[in-house]
Amino acid sequence: MSNDSSDIKIGNYLLERLVQLDSLSVQGVPGDFNMGLLDLIEDHPSLTWIGNSNELNAAYAADGYARIKHTIAAVVTTFGVGELSALNGIAGSFSERLPVIHVVGVPSTAAQGSHSLLHHTLGDGRFSAFENMSKEISADSAILKHKEGAGEAIDRILVKAMKAARPVYLALPTDLVHATIPSAALKTPLNYDAEENDPDAEKYVLGVAEQHISSASSAVILVDACAARHGCIDETNELVNKSGLPVFATPMGKTIVDEDHPQYGGIYVGSLTSDLVKEVVEGADVLITIGSLKSDFNTGNFSYRTPKSSTIELHSDYTKIGYSHYPDIGMKRLLPKLSALLEANGNKRREETKKIVPKFENVLPKDSSSTITQEWFWPRLGQFFAPNDQIIVETGTSSFGMLEAKLPRSSKWVSQVLWGSIGWSVGAALGVALGARESKFGRTHLFVGDGSLQLTAQEIGTMMKHSLCPYLFILNNDGYEIERQIHGPQRSYNDIPPWDLSKALDFMGNDKANKDAESHKKDSKLSRKQYVRVETKEELDALLKSEEFGKADRIRLIEVVMKRGDAPKALKRQAEATGQANKYE
Amino acid sequence: MSNDSSDIKIGNYLLERLVQLDSLSVQGVPGDFNMGLLDLIEDHPSLTWIGNSNELNAAYAADGYARIKHTIAAVVTTFGVGELSALNGIAGSFSERLPVIHVVGVPSTAAQGSHSLLHHTLGDGRFSAFENMSKEISADSAILKHKEGAGEAIDRILVKAMKAARPVYLALPTDLVHATIPSAALKTPLNYDAEENDPDAEKYVLGVAEQHISSASSAVILVDACAARHGCIDETNELVNKSGLPVFATPMGKTIVDEDHPQYGGIYVGSLTSDLVKEVVEGADVLITIGSLKSDFNTGNFSYRTPKSSTIELHSDYTKIGYSHYPDIGMKRLLPKLSALLEANGNKRREETKKIVPKFENVLPKDSSSTITQEWFWPRLGQFFAPNDQIIVETGTSSFGMLEAKLPRSSKWVSQVLWGSIGWSVGAALGVALGARESKFGRTHLFVGDGSLQLTAQEIGTMMKHSLCPYLFILNNDGYEIERQIHGPQRSYNDIPPWDLSKALDFMGNDKANKDAESHKKDSKLSRKQYVRVETKEELDALLKSEEFGKADRIRLIEVVMKRGDAPKALKRQAEATGQANKYE
Repeated sequence: MSNDSSDIKIGNYLLERLVQLDSLSVQGVPGDFNMGLLDLIEDHPSLTWIGNSNELNAAYAADGYARIKHTIAAVVTTFGVGELSALNGIAGSFSERLPVIHVVGVPSTAAQGSHSLLHHTLGDGRFSAFENMSKEISADSAILKHKEGAGEAIDRILVKAMKAARPVYLALPTDLVHATIPSAALKTPLNYDAEENDPDAEKYVLGVAEQHISSASSAVILVDACAARHGCIDETNELVNKSGLPVFATPMGKTIVDEDHPQYGGIYVGSLTSDLVKEVVEGADVLITIGSLKSDFNTGNFSYRTPKSSTIELHSDYTKIGYSHYPDIGMKRLLPKLSALLEANGNKRREETKKIVPKFENVLPKDSSSTITQEWFWPRLGQFFAPNDQIIVETGTSSFGMLEAKLPRSSKWVSQVLWGSIGWSVGAALGVALGARESKFGRTHLFVGDGSLQLTAQEIGTMMKHSLCPYLFILNNDGYEIERQIHGPQRSYNDIPPWDLSKALDFMGNDKANKDAESHKKDSKLSRKQYVRVETKEELDALLKSEEFGKADRIRLIEVVMKRGDAPKALKRQAEATGQANKYE
Repeated sequence: MSNDSSDIKIGNYLLERLVQLDSLSVQGVPGDFNMGLLDLIEDHPSLTWIGNSNELNAAYAADGYARIKHTIAAVVTTFGVGELSALNGIAGSFSERLPVIHVVGVPSTAAQGSHSLLHHTLGDGRFSAFENMSKEISADSAILKHKEGAGEAIDRILVKAMKAARPVYLALPTDLVHATIPSAALKTPLNYDAEENDPDAEKYVLGVAEQHISSASSAVILVDACAARHGCIDETNELVNKSGLPVFATPMGKTIVDEDHPQYGGIYVGSLTSDLVKEVVEGADVLITIGSLKSDFNTGNFSYRTPKSSTIELHSDYTKIGYSHYPDIGMKRLLPKLSALLEANGNKRREETKKIVPKFENVLPKDSSSTITQEWFWPRLGQFFAPNDQIIVETGTSSFGMLEAKLPRSSKWVSQVLWGSIGWSVGAALGVALGARESKFGRTHLFVGDGSLQLTAQEIGTMMKHSLCPYLFILNNDGYEIERQIHGPQRSYNDIPPWDLSKALDFMGNDKANKDAESHKKDSKLSRKQYVRVETKEELDALLKSEEFGKADRIRLIEVVMKRGDAPKALKRQAEATGQANKYE
């Protein structure tokens, strides 16, 4: 028997699923084919429509939100013009494995069927061109054509996104968004738990792994991105704690295990690794990698010196031990069992670990000059952060530099090492700040160069519109420094228009409309100013020490003047390798 | 016999072809896979590297440049991250038929062959995903794998772009850009002339057309976008002049025939047309359309009241007369012959035309209020423009409003009626200003709303970097007015962060580095200020009348305060139709 009261608009069905998944901030830009959905979002008691400055920034913000909330993020665009602007951001989430649902408001099914020459089309009647483009960077897609099955299609792609940790694509025609379907399915939350492993195969794999580890004179754990992406942060920490083994992180795995954990020794990144870490990791008889993702920048250009024969690789959907490959044995189920097996000798190993694991500390170089050097800046900032802070680093100087800083307990490192799209961090910082506020995490800190900032700067206005209070550290080194390190250090194509960053907040936050800004501006004290420019170590040091500056009670833009040509050591070495691999003669 | 001195780097081969095509400003953003090509561009004596703030803006600028120069525009991006950000802009050029070459610097052929997990990849070894995405919005592409045949492939796609008036895609691996190939082919310029029509078929078609026109008691010409896109501006004007027939333009065809031409009567856009124009166009026995492109916004939502039986459609590659379709009879060759046939009775028709064609003038409404209304603003600006000026209008209030203004002789109307991507006009204005400077055209005027501006605002910094002096008219009506007209006039999703536009130029043109700006700022006279805000008709009128304001000797940003909810009549009617076609209940 049908019951009208149990029907729900297709748009609202989607929104209820988002709420169930704790995805509460919806990114996007209004357009003439999506406003019927925006009505439902604006009217929804649990959701916030963010309204980004453009679609690329919206996709970046969704990416950041998914990283910090460990759930799916939603971005809403309009047919053609809107959705294509978002593609680079969505592709980044595909590459880096973040669940994002790209909801595109498309023309009515009638208009599409007649192949009308509508605005926002390619003018040739091909209404499927844009969905074809998105398919290349989506784990699944649902192109709704009628209301029957719409709920099931939405559920299918949401589950796929969560399980695969990848973006999915939903085309929602204007005439369907308010069409109604039964709501009964909503009573059952979506199930995206990892599959159980085959018990016999799993038992066998556990035996082989345990044998390898127990018979080795030394073993270490290397934590990588997919431990977080596939929901295994707790399981990873359990393995570390029970096994007592030394643990290291790749650049993409930083902060999955707290950096003040007594068994933690720092970052392993192949040939770019510090000597002390290298010795322990490469000297181990067995290397256990969790969620490894061996991209060039995540491995020091593929320079691991760890033999395959002695590596145990734990992945979301397979396991490898030495040369043996075990399909469909996923780490989510395997890790707790491996932890239990290794617990027996945990205390003994923990004692051993204490002796060999290097101390990972923020050590400031002894250097009498006042110039803010890369070598000094990152460990000094490392000292500034507090537990639960979010640290977003732009690809380039920031992501390489901050790697070398020790971050506090429960802080989150947010970077885009694999996709590496410049400008990403500004949009991502918006998403992270929104997620952190929802989850009552600590402060949000963005580190971005003056070059990368220019690609996406307008999202600072969106941050202010939502009264967010991030710290925006802008490294002013006069252009694209990472590019200069790779090629053309004196070339003018690596220069940028000289922006006056002192005007950024006033420009994008029009203080006529922003009373907070008005009162903040009257604050003459440096530590309370929204904009500060620092040129010397002493100035920055004093600022970071100030208690008032430490309070995230207003948005702050800190322009840090650094020397052109200075770069973190790891970047210099990576740039050299990248330059070599892409020689022009 | 091979002769080393006649060899040339593949990158330089491409650049020489661009110079031959008079494409002298190269848009784009540096990235680690394209800098070898940027070296060659920077070192080339005839080319200028623009260095945009981001790739979408670069693609928009290329689109604008192609429009104004009537040749191919080049945009250079880097693999994955860079190229995907440009796609919306490239798709716009596909939709609106502009020749653009999207040159993507990609990893070396060796790295691609080994499917390395490089940064800027999707992490799954699919190096072809991005070229697949671009294929949907390209007329042709060349994915260079080795140096053999590289020159031929470059020539092929350039010719294709020019003939089809569409974008093409070139993937240039780092190891090939400096590899050498023979340069001999460069001695022969590329031939992209339209094909000759089959002489017998053409003769037949001419006879039918001439018969239709001569036996009709009235005929009118309707000029549309593709007359310009397919290089038929001269041929179109010749037909008008020789035939003596009344001529009208669609929104996309505006200014192809001068708006002060004595036979010109204004804009025809279906049911949105003024009564006087409607009467003449819809009352004619024969309608001759040149390069018509019948999109919703270009036709008043498909509301032509002109019977097919009495329409002669001239297209780049086919002709239609009544119900008869003549494939491969293109207008480039047909138009001069038709003009010659119609010349005989030209004078007689011209006399008749004078009697029936409405006068198209800039008439200011009689209205005693000081508020700057849409109804007053556009004709007032129409009076301000001078011959040879460029007028770029953003999709939305500006493109609908400026339609109603009469533009002076030899001025160029630049709009994006079909693709309609908000934010496009800011990037396009950069490309137009560059092209206008190269071609020694007149002043460049941009009209964009405060909402659309926010998507792409950073390109103003690029304009200043290149010392361009456009007039940037920013219509401040407190949000996305075109969206409000279509749906949700009171919805907060159509609001935007309140920017303080008085700070825009200082922010993006850092006057510490810009001596011009410094001296301009000391100019206290309103008419010489770089930034002016006007709130009343009287203020704006005085400004527009000032001789000093009329000199394009500095970049100017004019913030025009207009009422939220006010919109050009044509937009109101179009928005209603769009809203109806995409109802949400």
